Amino acid sequence: MSTNTRAFATHAPTEPLGLFNFVRRSPRADDVAIDILFCGVCHTDIHHSRNDWGRANYPMVPGHEIVGRVTAVGADVTRFKLGDLVGVGCMVDSCQQCAPCGKGWEQYCESGSTFTYNSVDRQDGSPTYGGYSDHIVVAQNFVLKVPENLDPAAAAPLLCAGITSFSPLRHWKVGPGSKVGVVGLGGLGHMALKLAKAMGAEVTLFTRSAGKETDARALGADHIVLSTDPDQMAAAANRFELIVDTVPYAHDLNPYVPTLAVGGTIVLVGYLGPVEPALNSTPLLLKRKAVAGSLIGGIAETQEMLDFCGQHGITSDIEMINIQDINAAYERMLKSDVKYRFVIDMASLKEAA
Amino acid sequence: MSTNTRAFATHAPTEPLGLFNFVRRSPRADDVAIDILFCGVCHTDIHHSRNDWGRANYPMVPGHEIVGRVTAVGADVTRFKLGDLVGVGCMVDSCQQCAPCGKGWEQYCESGSTFTYNSVDRQDGSPTYGGYSDHIVVAQNFVLKVPENLDPAAAAPLLCAGITSFSPLRHWKVGPGSKVGVVGLGGLGHMALKLAKAMGAEVTLFTRSAGKETDARALGADHIVLSTDPDQMAAAANRFELIVDTVPYAHDLNPYVPTLAVGGTIVLVGYLGPVEPALNSTPLLLKRKAVAGSLIGGIAETQEMLDFCGQHGITSDIEMINIQDINAAYERMLKSDVKYRFVIDMASLKEAA
Repeated sequence: MSTNTRAFATHAPTEPLGLFNFVRRSPRADDVAIDILFCGVCHTDIHHSRNDWGRANYPMVPGHEIVGRVTAVGADVTRFKLGDLVGVGCMVDSCQQCAPCGKGWEQYCESGSTFTYNSVDRQDGSPTYGGYSDHIVVAQNFVLKVPENLDPAAAAPLLCAGITSFSPLRHWKVGPGSKVGVVGLGGLGHMALKLAKAMGAEVTLFTRSAGKETDARALGADHIVLSTDPDQMAAAANRFELIVDTVPYAHDLNPYVPTLAVGGTIVLVGYLGPVEPALNSTPLLLKRKAVAGSLIGGIAETQEMLDFCGQHGITSDIEMINIQDINAAYERMLKSDVKYRFVIDMASLKEAA
Repeated sequence: MSTNTRAFATHAPTEPLGLFNFVRRSPRADDVAIDILFCGVCHTDIHHSRNDWGRANYPMVPGHEIVGRVTAVGADVTRFKLGDLVGVGCMVDSCQQCAPCGKGWEQYCESGSTFTYNSVDRQDGSPTYGGYSDHIVVAQNFVLKVPENLDPAAAAPLLCAGITSFSPLRHWKVGPGSKVGVVGLGGLGHMALKLAKAMGAEVTLFTRSAGKETDARALGADHIVLSTDPDQMAAAANRFELIVDTVPYAHDLNPYVPTLAVGGTIVLVGYLGPVEPALNSTPLLLKRKAVAGSLIGGIAETQEMLDFCGQHGITSDIEMINIQDINAAYERMLKSDVKYRFVIDMASLKEAA
């Protein structure tokens, strides 16, 4: 039995989001139906809503940082039961056949992951609609268990911002004593500080704003380097095994490369586009350094991240909003005016007109 | 007792190389004195001779692909004896104290390696003069054993071109079944083909010249991809765990990135300078790919490479020249007109006037 769904959607790049009704599919045998309690607001939501990446399909219901409770399960569902606190992140399906899927890297699926919104369902070709809605239906293999000890609202951003920071830290083997740099203190950056610190790393925030020091230390930074101060940058030379660069726009990577230790990697997690000004290869060769990219994380890794956050009591720092405030929230995000993630209280959708 | 040394040197960026006499130091307690039999000619020799990198010190005696026989050893030398066939590569010293030196990565020494030429001796401040000379004196820790079963002339290029290709193959764990790409078929590229093939990899040469196919297959390439043919490039998508890019000038990396498998790395070993046209970060993020650099190799790794080449009968394909032909050889190299490395028969230096 399919279900009428209330949601917020946009219908064109320049249009604000507003109330939208559509029908979710009835749960298939392996599906989990979820009442959405909270949904985080990711920069990607803005990019897709406004067709910044040229791949928008309208109407679009954004939202891929979803936390809710299970309300129904299909006949074959074994991993979830009614009432479970669960999460859905950026993906709801992948081919499950290719080499990356076989390694649990569904985010790097060779035929392309099916994203939680702005994608097309692999079985019936219908558009996928995201978490700015009152409920969602997702195959159990793409549903995550959210530790009950975490605040469910503050846990929502773990589903994208959390895993996006966690995956490179794990992949590049950050652990006790590792020296990790984080560039930028937004939704991703503040999670990277918390997670790297909880892994035992010595963590340094690179920032352009001197005023962020107190907040950064509270979030886990052992050191703060003002990236606009050449002396501070020089003093950080040869230090980091890994730098997680969360900046979401084009910026000069060259000043950060010398702060990597021999063999170090700067991994971009926030910016898609040309690396300009031009990256200089010389310091890469002279010290076997690398510039890499990383995208969210696989499903098993996302569960590992949630469990890790449960053990360490880690959630996002959030500002709760009502769905009616979403357009204003986008404007504030574009000015980096949020500490550090907006989360929509989906109860507000009931009153939305 | 210091020794008069005959050599070829240049005295200014625009000057041809010519006969030059100087005095080598007497062997210190840990030094090995070596009569030079053969010296390979590396592109770096041209760059430094002509001050392309703005770091030239004159007079300059280039040459860092040195093979010769031991003629004297200092009192503390334990690893070498008179008559041993030995090699000297790009480095003759390093601090031996820093973290990279501690890991055997003398090429990434934090205070800078002492190079075989165009550097300054760490003990007496004298200039270092390279292998375009009749003998050389080097601390035993920077002298390599050359397997006696290898042709000593064809082994000379292993000391730079060989290790420069070998080190990234080892670092990125190339082995049986690995899929490796090699960009460019020159001194470095032809060694990368041979070494990757001997490690058991499936090896693909990227080249702009259709005419290189027969040679490339003879050197070990299983596949050839014409990088100017978009169809061939598309057919190679998602294939390579590692691409060794040996091109020594600025070139567009973006067409190669899609041919990397998820998690793959393209490692630059030949080009120092701005990466232009701009590298696009999008495919790096979408498939966790990386662009890295790598520089020669450490001393222990260089010995490992020489032993590997001894076991597999691998040497460079060379054209032997007399020292009197060096300036003409440079001109030919600038036109890529050499298969695949010039090696100087240092016996010719005896007749040089």
